[in-house]
Amino acid sequence: MNKKMIFSILGQLTLIEAVLLLCPTVVSWIYKETQVTSAFVLTIIIAFVIGAVLCVVSKPKNRVIFAKEGFVIVALGWILMSAIGALPFFISKEIPSYVDAFFETVSGFTTTGATILTNVENLSYSTLFWRSFTHWIGGMGVLVFIMAVLPSISDRSIHIMRAEMPGPIVGKIVPKARETAKILYIIYFAMTAIEIVFLLAGGMPLYDSIVHAFGTAGTGGFGIRNDSIASYSPYLQWVITVFMFLFGINFNLYYLIILKRLRSVVSSGELWTYVGISVISVVIIFFDIRSLYGTLGEAIRASAFQVSSLITSTGYATANVNAWPTLSKTLLVALMFIGACAGSTGGGFKVARVVILVKNIRQELKKAIHPRSITATRFEGKIVDKITLSSVSAYLAIYVVFFIATILLISFEPLGMELLGLKSLGVEELGFEANFTAALSCFNNIGPIFSQVDPNISFAKYGDFSKIILSFAMLFGRLEIYPLLITLIPSTWTKK
Amino acid sequence: MNKKMIFSILGQLTLIEAVLLLCPTVVSWIYKETQVTSAFVLTIIIAFVIGAVLCVVSKPKNRVIFAKEGFVIVALGWILMSAIGALPFFISKEIPSYVDAFFETVSGFTTTGATILTNVENLSYSTLFWRSFTHWIGGMGVLVFIMAVLPSISDRSIHIMRAEMPGPIVGKIVPKARETAKILYIIYFAMTAIEIVFLLAGGMPLYDSIVHAFGTAGTGGFGIRNDSIASYSPYLQWVITVFMFLFGINFNLYYLIILKRLRSVVSSGELWTYVGISVISVVIIFFDIRSLYGTLGEAIRASAFQVSSLITSTGYATANVNAWPTLSKTLLVALMFIGACAGSTGGGFKVARVVILVKNIRQELKKAIHPRSITATRFEGKIVDKITLSSVSAYLAIYVVFFIATILLISFEPLGMELLGLKSLGVEELGFEANFTAALSCFNNIGPIFSQVDPNISFAKYGDFSKIILSFAMLFGRLEIYPLLITLIPSTWTKK
Repeated sequence: MNKKMIFSILGQLTLIEAVLLLCPTVVSWIYKETQVTSAFVLTIIIAFVIGAVLCVVSKPKNRVIFAKEGFVIVALGWILMSAIGALPFFISKEIPSYVDAFFETVSGFTTTGATILTNVENLSYSTLFWRSFTHWIGGMGVLVFIMAVLPSISDRSIHIMRAEMPGPIVGKIVPKARETAKILYIIYFAMTAIEIVFLLAGGMPLYDSIVHAFGTAGTGGFGIRNDSIASYSPYLQWVITVFMFLFGINFNLYYLIILKRLRSVVSSGELWTYVGISVISVVIIFFDIRSLYGTLGEAIRASAFQVSSLITSTGYATANVNAWPTLSKTLLVALMFIGACAGSTGGGFKVARVVILVKNIRQELKKAIHPRSITATRFEGKIVDKITLSSVSAYLAIYVVFFIATILLISFEPLGMELLGLKSLGVEELGFEANFTAALSCFNNIGPIFSQVDPNISFAKYGDFSKIILSFAMLFGRLEIYPLLITLIPSTWTKK
Repeated sequence: MNKKMIFSILGQLTLIEAVLLLCPTVVSWIYKETQVTSAFVLTIIIAFVIGAVLCVVSKPKNRVIFAKEGFVIVALGWILMSAIGALPFFISKEIPSYVDAFFETVSGFTTTGATILTNVENLSYSTLFWRSFTHWIGGMGVLVFIMAVLPSISDRSIHIMRAEMPGPIVGKIVPKARETAKILYIIYFAMTAIEIVFLLAGGMPLYDSIVHAFGTAGTGGFGIRNDSIASYSPYLQWVITVFMFLFGINFNLYYLIILKRLRSVVSSGELWTYVGISVISVVIIFFDIRSLYGTLGEAIRASAFQVSSLITSTGYATANVNAWPTLSKTLLVALMFIGACAGSTGGGFKVARVVILVKNIRQELKKAIHPRSITATRFEGKIVDKITLSSVSAYLAIYVVFFIATILLISFEPLGMELLGLKSLGVEELGFEANFTAALSCFNNIGPIFSQVDPNISFAKYGDFSKIILSFAMLFGRLEIYPLLITLIPSTWTKK
């Protein structure tokens, strides 16, 4: 275990965060929110000191890292980023409890969008900006960002990238991991800018446009209004619908488009599955809800927006989904589990994994009928090797186990408090459906949906223990379990 | 595809069912329920004719069958058995709709115990006897039974056994499949008899004892009182608790006990996991519900009964679980998914699969840390080969897909009826939670629980389309998906 290298990169990460915190500080100057300015400045100083100490203390002689170090760097990096990123909310007293502020920041970086705030419109411009900015930073990955801007990390950094990027297979677009990171960030930046232009064209104010572009690009879901996107014009809703969908596509495909390798794009099984699932869902939900809306146009818009928002795990809303028929609600829950494409900013189980699993099921059936036949599963034209196949299957198992564990742990809080004699803290019983929804929306990084509509199941109602569990559920979901789990295994730290 | 052999075995199966139907006929004579007697007699005649025709028409020259035929025989056999077994309910008009009668019979044979009846106490003794008898027949497997009593099937019958027996690995206890089937049925019969003695000793009437022993042995859950087991004495509740638990253990272990190979029993990883999960759940739920009950004894009894009933997928109840705290309810839902041991009469995902999956996850983590290490997963002392491992993982995937598909299909009925212009049939919207519970309890063969308590989510409220879907969900769950799925694939029938 190359601990010095780990701390060195964590130090650089903290320094980068200090620099990123300058953006909301500038916003607070523009809006003359002086009290918040001092909170940001103080946080920048703290981040700078921590980062500098980490960098100075750990001067790694050996700069080589392996898969193990990659996982640990990503896991600790995300926790540290969130712990520091929560300070402005806490210091400015806009979120008085540190646990709440931590939850909100984790929710931001992991692009979940779940909130403990009951009235977003109370917050200052600069705090809301920072809140949405965390989505944008977390969407493509903080460490991928570092790799793009800092030259100091060796080319072994593919291990970091692999640990941070979602999906079963991480392909380097170009041979060097650093170049790949740069290309991904350029595409990400350009698409965000294009969305801002489209939103401005529809008459959305600049501040709103930037904040919502951040929320869309990271497929996060933090907004600045209590009714999410519902009060914006139909044109703006359509723009956001389209961009949520676009940010749910594997970014490698955009690079292939730039390279004019359209054949590879068109032959992507994952892309067509993603498009197919989305279109079918929009059509079914449209038929299901059409009598609830005045015009067919309204119904198709509501259907498309909600489908795009949930399959990409963004979580923006324009409709009261709770009032929809059971079929539509059930379909939306299924979309939440499936999630977006691998290599996108979206969360969930990922379409690529679904495709691989379904193909694997077909192979298993063939094998059951003809026990001696030799079979192979193909994905995107290539044979999926046994290791990837078994890791995809294992991921489903581990995903189910963690999902159930999350629900059990947050259900445990009332009894736990009682047994500890802390009944006075007044932890509420929220019921199975609420706990299921909370775990679902955190673990798949979806966020506000459903809870937004029903005030009885707001995240604000959970106790501190559950909030910490849900914060880690978001981290486990965003980093796809392995990095955090490996960091928690003692043998990772002891053995050479 | 050896179609003649398939039809020949289906014919024998139907003849066996005709013989089995003599039991409730005798009961109807004893209780002088003449109208029901004629329904049973008519069914016996129909079954005899169908069976005879099938046997006469198909005289297989080639008696060899392979895995494929095994799956098809089991799938079609179970559907045919249920279709005929539903006739007494329908002909006697005790269940006026044939779809309802089919649902009830499938629920019986698959040992689910879900019912469309809203007042069980209205039914005649002999119909209730047949209803519970189907649990006993289905518990150990109808085709396993045939193999035990009929000498005509070649020793290739291991394929049938493999298709019908639950669990990831089917071990023949002795080299011959037929001998294995016989031993299993002797143990099954003896344990049922012992339970009847224990129930009689507690003052339960003979009829009640037999019927409840059937329901326990098959881990079915059909009772004869509207409040299930709640109104029986604490002693009787404890007897049923213990026997439900015992019938959830792999039957191979009982054979090992008879052989005095206790070392193998004690070293069974699945057994200890099953015991461990059960004990921990009983303790946690006991703490969680203790304030709801007058004495600690009552609380521990309620906790033990419900845990035993749900982990084995029986579905008997002694308590209003809906009034329990969220933690207890959530834990019970988790137990329903896990299910009992492989090779028992219980349903669900099976403890053996959970053990294998968790071990596999551990191996995957090791591989992620040390990508070049060579690893092996062990279960019950033996290395699990790659084929079993990948089939267990694939089973989880297929299980999740089918579970979600079931929920979606039953959610689809209201819209489907509307689009077909059949809105007048008055299919109700039952809501996501009800559909989730219905799918869960059918697919895992659990049955009455929860729905029993809340009259709003009774199975009686679903339309015919959903009832058929749920009937097939029970069959898919009991036969563990593959047999039915393979039967439905056209290539099974066309290719040599």
